[in-house]
Amino acid sequence: MTEAVLYDYWRSSASYRLRIALNLAGVAYRTEQVDLRAGEQVADAHMARNPQGFVPVLELDGLRLTQSMAIIEYLDETRGCGFLPDDAPGRTRVRALAYVIAMDIHPICNLSVAKHVVDLTGGDKAVMGDWMRHFIRRGLVAFEALLDDPGTGAFCHGDRPGLADICLMPQLYNAERWGVELADLVRIGAIAERCRGEQGFAAAIPAPPPD
Amino acid sequence: MTEAVLYDYWRSSASYRLRIALNLAGVAYRTEQVDLRAGEQVADAHMARNPQGFVPVLELDGLRLTQSMAIIEYLDETRGCGFLPDDAPGRTRVRALAYVIAMDIHPICNLSVAKHVVDLTGGDKAVMGDWMRHFIRRGLVAFEALLDDPGTGAFCHGDRPGLADICLMPQLYNAERWGVELADLVRIGAIAERCRGEQGFAAAIPAPPPD
Repeated sequence: MTEAVLYDYWRSSASYRLRIALNLAGVAYRTEQVDLRAGEQVADAHMARNPQGFVPVLELDGLRLTQSMAIIEYLDETRGCGFLPDDAPGRTRVRALAYVIAMDIHPICNLSVAKHVVDLTGGDKAVMGDWMRHFIRRGLVAFEALLDDPGTGAFCHGDRPGLADICLMPQLYNAERWGVELADLVRIGAIAERCRGEQGFAAAIPAPPPD
Repeated sequence: MTEAVLYDYWRSSASYRLRIALNLAGVAYRTEQVDLRAGEQVADAHMARNPQGFVPVLELDGLRLTQSMAIIEYLDETRGCGFLPDDAPGRTRVRALAYVIAMDIHPICNLSVAKHVVDLTGGDKAVMGDWMRHFIRRGLVAFEALLDDPGTGAFCHGDRPGLADICLMPQLYNAERWGVELADLVRIGAIAERCRGEQGFAAAIPAPPPD
């Protein structure tokens, strides 16, 4: 079988999310870095892979796949990863938790969006940090409230890591990077501690490429 | 069976999305308006339904469900709506298309986000329109490019409306409201015309409540 290729940027949290999922799914892959700081995501070579000009893009099973959340569902459907529980209410709860992060925090804090805010406000870089802290904190506070539910176990839903945990850890990485207050989010903190102990999560932690 | 209740705001495009899906699924429901202009979404009564303070919330099958995209997957799984095709690559393509809108346009153009931009830029209301046009146009241009694919049929994927179409029509409603240039997006335009001819879409079009 052809080797899977992940078009990745080490600091993209959508890429981080997908690296965790690939690790948990046991899919071997190599990465090609698309340097967002150098604008490589909107160069012709990458736009031909993804007209959105975003990472990640995954080449797998002879397909070229975009949108991290769609790809993770694909891995779950084709590799039986158990990222979603078997029952429809449970699946809905896990997707809803995941989307609190993947829809209502992550896109708003995408670098291209935050840079647009900085441009509109006259170029003050401090605005970017305030923007990140405002929306990350708002979303994580709601996420913490939603964890106050009998469905929560050692992980966000039950006792094995799934789609919500896969979204949570990259968002926490960003939260820490931007100095978001997290100490009071105790359910999130406990789950994060368990995720850190899982090899699939640990191996996906962002690290700058060696060159 | 208990009647389904949709906590709705007539102009919310996430609610609009869910109204289309409920219509296509043939699920009868009544709506309760949560007036976003009056701040009802963050009042105690609604926060008890959804700690995110967002609409829509759907009460169905004895469950209280949040996050429109998770709810639409639930309807598809429990009612066999065919919102996603049967094959894994097709399902991934439809989810990726849907997420170009539901992740990379809609949350950025959420009213609370756009208002935050207006506040940061000193209260100039014109900034809101520029913000909307920038991000809606950027996303729809990518969506149009992704429709240049053999999977596209009379609708976004094949010849029946699905998850991507359900996301597209509310986004076009917003695009028109904010004056986004759409004339060159001809694949989108042709699909929109077909959706307008479907009863499930037509019955979901935003209309102010009668009072």
